[in-house]
Amino acid sequence: MGETKNIIVAFQGEHGAFSEMAARSYFGKDVEVVPQRNFSALFAAVEHGECTHGIVPIENSLMGSIHENYDHLSAHHLQIIGELKLRIVHNLIVNPGVKLEDIRHIYSQAPALAQCTQFTASLSQAETVMTADTAGAVKALKTSGARDAAAIASAQAAWDYDLEILQAGIEDDHQNYTRFLVVTSETIAPENPDIQMPAKTSIVFAMKNVPGALFKSLSVFALRDLNLLKIESRPLAGKPWEYAFSLDFEGHIHQEPCARAIEHLREIATFVKILGSYRQGDMVEGKVWKREKNKM
Amino acid sequence: MGETKNIIVAFQGEHGAFSEMAARSYFGKDVEVVPQRNFSALFAAVEHGECTHGIVPIENSLMGSIHENYDHLSAHHLQIIGELKLRIVHNLIVNPGVKLEDIRHIYSQAPALAQCTQFTASLSQAETVMTADTAGAVKALKTSGARDAAAIASAQAAWDYDLEILQAGIEDDHQNYTRFLVVTSETIAPENPDIQMPAKTSIVFAMKNVPGALFKSLSVFALRDLNLLKIESRPLAGKPWEYAFSLDFEGHIHQEPCARAIEHLREIATFVKILGSYRQGDMVEGKVWKREKNKM
Repeated sequence: MGETKNIIVAFQGEHGAFSEMAARSYFGKDVEVVPQRNFSALFAAVEHGECTHGIVPIENSLMGSIHENYDHLSAHHLQIIGELKLRIVHNLIVNPGVKLEDIRHIYSQAPALAQCTQFTASLSQAETVMTADTAGAVKALKTSGARDAAAIASAQAAWDYDLEILQAGIEDDHQNYTRFLVVTSETIAPENPDIQMPAKTSIVFAMKNVPGALFKSLSVFALRDLNLLKIESRPLAGKPWEYAFSLDFEGHIHQEPCARAIEHLREIATFVKILGSYRQGDMVEGKVWKREKNKM
Repeated sequence: MGETKNIIVAFQGEHGAFSEMAARSYFGKDVEVVPQRNFSALFAAVEHGECTHGIVPIENSLMGSIHENYDHLSAHHLQIIGELKLRIVHNLIVNPGVKLEDIRHIYSQAPALAQCTQFTASLSQAETVMTADTAGAVKALKTSGARDAAAIASAQAAWDYDLEILQAGIEDDHQNYTRFLVVTSETIAPENPDIQMPAKTSIVFAMKNVPGALFKSLSVFALRDLNLLKIESRPLAGKPWEYAFSLDFEGHIHQEPCARAIEHLREIATFVKILGSYRQGDMVEGKVWKREKNKM
């Protein structure tokens, strides 16, 4: 996107977070971003209009879905308007001059530690310690000035906090992508956006608890040759062992077969909510933005 | 089950864990149990024969699936032989004599804290602190003797560590059940078990990444009127945006329609693994076992 004036993007974590890199990849490097302490705060900031957009990690190609955000998408009145898949490159980050053999503690978020197990196991003198987020671990390292510790985070975080990358690309599997959704409030979302191909629609729905219900719900798409991309089930509050289904399928809600499929689904579902139709995201390599330090 | 001799059950957590209560509900109160520090250790203990059985939480009716254990079931050579749904009753546990107004810190596992949000919010002077497990928080409280802290855990944990229940049933929603699976190694599992009704079969499978693949896979069950109970998708390692599906359906693999459905699925899937056929579990209220303290 070219024009980033008046766009303010809420992201979860500290400056240098992968979420911030995703926001800048999508909107352009100069876009204004506002850190949020957790996902609840992020969704509230967009819903209440403090931010125009939010960038929401929804799935990692190795770890699977981020289910908390499926629940937030169901509960809030937001529209999904875009998507991107950011390659996650992890780096071992230290205070300048600290050497590999000095490291006794490695700090990062649990999923990041899990994605670098082979590397951290090779540093047998070091223990891993969980933190709330990746860039936050780098910030803490900077503050403490510790000479016996490292953090695992993005190259952007190393740049932002003026620390050193001791080893780059330490993730076990380089096929490591996080898929992010771009959300905006229903009041801002354009009513009749252009259909950008390849399009994708996300919905959430629930069925009566009767035999064959899920099969019937999927048949409304199969009968119209609409390709399903992803299905997730989440528990329905107060109804043990009943589920809401989150479904992504190819096509735009303003295309006839998609609109018909949703109409058909409404006949047999107890509720259907359309989360948005948007262009399927590309896989992107995040670039470090060498911003001036006073711009953070 | 009556006969618990020679049965040794691996469970995750400390003594007094909900998992231990589930094991005793299923096998009988005197069954020998062995605590495991995490789920990896639990699965290894059963696979390597140190324990004959494992008790595995797979889903909570409020929080959803415990995805880590879906991955362990796919990766290990174990059979599911049973199931139960334990009601989760949370209690505020303190050192004897500590009063509600003394409490500044409330310790428990993240899901337990999340399930008691209304209660903990009502204690405005207290902060919540995450721990690795519920009963472990009670054990730590006992060791420290803290007079300004409480833990949230089972009534069994209060009994086991001789602490006081200051308030019982503090969960926000009493419709709070955790579904546990009983697993055993493939070498121990009986080859031709009796079919106990209502039966249920769990499988994991993957499909070629072609349009309509998921719909086709579900049709092998729908065409035979086999009711689907649950579906979960998990990422396939090294194949971003492709998934393995974990599926529970009604019926036993030794019943003709189920066997045929699996045969049919094998024609179109890239792999199918049968995790087990077993009796659908009942919902049970966990009972506190007032064991002698030297039996722990």
